Amino acid sequence: MLTLGIDPGTATIGYGVVRELPDGALQAVKYGVITTSPSQPMHERLQVIFETLTQIIEQHQPERAAVESMFFGKNVTTAITVAQGRGVILLALSLARVPIYEYKPNFIKQSISGYGSARKPQMQEMVRMLLGLDSIPRPDDAADALAIAITDIHNSRYAALMD
Amino acid sequence: MLTLGIDPGTATIGYGVVRELPDGALQAVKYGVITTSPSQPMHERLQVIFETLTQIIEQHQPERAAVESMFFGKNVTTAITVAQGRGVILLALSLARVPIYEYKPNFIKQSISGYGSARKPQMQEMVRMLLGLDSIPRPDDAADALAIAITDIHNSRYAALMD
Repeated sequence: MLTLGIDPGTATIGYGVVRELPDGALQAVKYGVITTSPSQPMHERLQVIFETLTQIIEQHQPERAAVESMFFGKNVTTAITVAQGRGVILLALSLARVPIYEYKPNFIKQSISGYGSARKPQMQEMVRMLLGLDSIPRPDDAADALAIAITDIHNSRYAALMD
Repeated sequence: MLTLGIDPGTATIGYGVVRELPDGALQAVKYGVITTSPSQPMHERLQVIFETLTQIIEQHQPERAAVESMFFGKNVTTAITVAQGRGVILLALSLARVPIYEYKPNFIKQSISGYGSARKPQMQEMVRMLLGLDSIPRPDDAADALAIAITDIHNSRYAALMD
């Protein structure tokens, strides 16, 4: 199983490719961030996100993609900006025919740490341990994306048990 | 001058292609709506919007595109959904190298009717008159998109005068 986790945004989009090995161990194949500058026109930023993500998909050929759901209560302007980026992320996955699974932030926290209100340092330490890494993956958005990918692998295991 | 006006959305996206003739008269070349179903997964809806809009661009080769700006005060969930659609609209235009101009709703009303708080029936009647049509263009979202295209043509004329 190879899952691509994505933490949506427009300035910084985290991504993480996680493989589940036959013995059930998890391996971080690749992770990082796609960044765009607020000084660029929005359509150029969206094109950078789309083209970079398409390259990542072509290179790693993930079997599944996991994307964080959007929940915003405060700043509508931020929500609109992030949602525009999220739209082109979903499009890139759809055009590449990668099945998409969406997870809410609390579900991801619950899945990784066993606690839906876990704080960021706890989450990052759990991601480090689950992937057998020597240090916490950086930057934060890449660690978040790895957490999303791990959540998807946990969830697909659970779904398989239920069959 | 050939302008493609777009009224963003996810369930219904209005579009209208307007040509400015050498004598300054305006002609509706093509207008209509792209529709997607709420029962479809979001990524499929975004793919339909992207692919249909890309076809419209290839067919008509507009020199400019005009897209309504987003302003939401009320429903954040609606804003997120519309913004995801708007993201793939901007992407399709960017990939096709069509220059994008954005206009606020009040600016469009001002440009078409001379009055920033004009109501929909007034706007639609002005669009009908400006394009020399026998009846008001339907559906509403297509008429809105034609209003956006006309606004862009007015605005580019004004910009040319200022040079």
